[in-house]
Amino acid sequence: MQPKRILALTTGGTIEKSYCESDGTISNRESILHANLVQRLRLPHTQLEVCEIMAKDSLQMTDSDRQAISQKINEQSTGYDGIIVLHGTDTMEHTLRYCYKQTAEPPIPVVFTGAMKPAGFEDSDARQNVTEALLAAQILPPGLYISFHSQIFPAPNVRKNKKRLTFEPTGD
Amino acid sequence: MQPKRILALTTGGTIEKSYCESDGTISNRESILHANLVQRLRLPHTQLEVCEIMAKDSLQMTDSDRQAISQKINEQSTGYDGIIVLHGTDTMEHTLRYCYKQTAEPPIPVVFTGAMKPAGFEDSDARQNVTEALLAAQILPPGLYISFHSQIFPAPNVRKNKKRLTFEPTGD
Amino acid sequence: MQPKRILALTTGGTIEKSYCESDGTISNRESILHANLVQRLRLPHTQLEVCEIMAKDSLQMTDSDRQAISQKINEQSTGYDGIIVLHGTDTMEHTLRYCYKQTAEPPIPVVFTGAMKPAGFEDSDARQNVTEALLAAQILPPGLYISFHSQIFPAPNVRKNKKRLTFEPTGD
Amino acid sequence: MQPKRILALTTGGTIEKSYCESDGTISNRESILHANLVQRLRLPHTQLEVCEIMAKDSLQMTDSDRQAISQKINEQSTGYDGIIVLHGTDTMEHTLRYCYKQTAEPPIPVVFTGAMKPAGFEDSDARQNVTEALLAAQILPPGLYISFHSQIFPAPNVRKNKKRLTFEPTGD
Repeated sequence: MQPKRILALTTGGTIEKSYCESDGTISNRESILHANLVQRLRLPHTQLEVCEIMAKDSLQMTDSDRQAISQKINEQSTGYDGIIVLHGTDTMEHTLRYCYKQTAEPPIPVVFTGAMKPAGFEDSDARQNVTEALLAAQILPPGLYISFHSQIFPAPNVRKNKKRLTFEPTGD
Repeated sequence: MQPKRILALTTGGTIEKSYCESDGTISNRESILHANLVQRLRLPHTQLEVCEIMAKDSLQMTDSDRQAISQKINEQSTGYDGIIVLHGTDTMEHTLRYCYKQTAEPPIPVVFTGAMKPAGFEDSDARQNVTEALLAAQILPPGLYISFHSQIFPAPNVRKNKKRLTFEPTGD
Repeated sequence: MQPKRILALTTGGTIEKSYCESDGTISNRESILHANLVQRLRLPHTQLEVCEIMAKDSLQMTDSDRQAISQKINEQSTGYDGIIVLHGTDTMEHTLRYCYKQTAEPPIPVVFTGAMKPAGFEDSDARQNVTEALLAAQILPPGLYISFHSQIFPAPNVRKNKKRLTFEPTGD
Repeated sequence: MQPKRILALTTGGTIEKSYCESDGTISNRESILHANLVQRLRLPHTQLEVCEIMAKDSLQMTDSDRQAISQKINEQSTGYDGIIVLHGTDTMEHTLRYCYKQTAEPPIPVVFTGAMKPAGFEDSDARQNVTEALLAAQILPPGLYISFHSQIFPAPNVRKNKKRLTFEPTGD
């Protein structure tokens, strides 16, 4: 059995925010995907590569950032079996729709995820969401999705529910 | 959006073994699924019910145990969107094939999983495997599977690799 | 053997900061001492009471806050075998000296502690520091101390070392 | 300020038992003190050396094992500010008394500790007990002690309470 080749694109967002002990702030610095999340998972059947595109709070993302993400997805979608994208939750739906307008039918599953609480917290949902996204990127049909809290939301009809602190389909 | 109804059947196995501080042994007592695993996951879109069938090391399972598991799966497969089965790894493939012989094509996804290390250990693979199985039971097509270490193995061609401490397809 | 009666006074500080998933900020809200720290310790020989005085970043503490802390310590020092005080690290030395000026020789050990990283982080030093302070408040001679990173600093000659992210004696 | 020089002698016991994924047993293999416990503590003021004497369930310790421990303590007590000894709980009191008969008044604090649950479990008391013992070995007067669950028990009048799963003074 060939290992599945998965590409993880990191862009920042709450999931990757870390705490600075010198100034007491919590913000996006370097990607925490490998050190905090991937090394605790057992992935003997998966060949995972991590590519850090940017490290931004998604409220500060511009269309040129979204263009960079979309372009990276399109460039890489022939070399992998699936792609996951770590992204802030506040504008994840916008980036998803941006990518959807560029390429509504990618040749592989492209799965966005993030977290409501930074990965370094004991009760963060980061590890759950990344675990799920990694599996989803292997078994879903080709397409663009958000994977969050054990639920798959196909693009483009999905939005963050700020009250329930999770995602939901639009039209609900 | 209706929440997905998932049934978790627990049978014991390494994943559910716990430590007794009085006698220093590690063994299957009560199910740890709810207390140790499920309550740490965020499942706002999932309606999960847990049913403890037995609490056995899978090396001690008999055919009548397997019959009980198979029967429970068949009885319950109309009331849920998916079923996960917690099971010891040593004979998981045997129970899977037993169920497969009884009902090769269940109407919903039925996903077996377990762990190489009991759930109470900090570096256990239990939480990862249960997280994956819960998602797999929602998005896989109907059928019988083992989900383990971010990989899906459809019944019946799967076996434990005792050296690599994971599962693999037979014929590899 | 009588259980030791220990009073924990909480004032806020980094150790007690928590993350708000709605607005993404990290700040002092309610005391996390009981839920996050004490309930994970085994204290069969200790009778611990928690009293929340305030919930402030110590950079925002005023002399009237320090007066309130000092007064509480003096009032309670006859009813307990020891007192621990959770406090922000930035002005812990000032509050310690404030209390020292009011009462240089309390009748029981009074042990200040805090953390460089909020208690909710997996790699926080909060649990270590609280564990040590609870023991120190039982076995040190009467007096005012900071306990931090497995070291005891008697009042008043102690200060935070912002570069090394720990405390040190003055004069070093 | 000179860092305190602490020697940690490891002998095995529940605290150091680890799980073997191949055969499903839990037993004393190599010392877990450094990898599992010490590297998570912040010890900027402490110079800690670890010396593995043996790796035994304390029920299997013989008098010649106890002699080896006692001899090591005596040999090393001039080069350190304090010694901690990791030991199984079942016969910790016997080894303590053995050492006490050999040398009732060592020149430094010698603090025995262990755990009711192996260090690898999420809810183990190992980290708490080691954290406390490391501090106790710096601030207690010279002598032989058991430190356990935030309590100090001077030699020789201490025993395990198998029902309460902790230690207690004899004569209580």
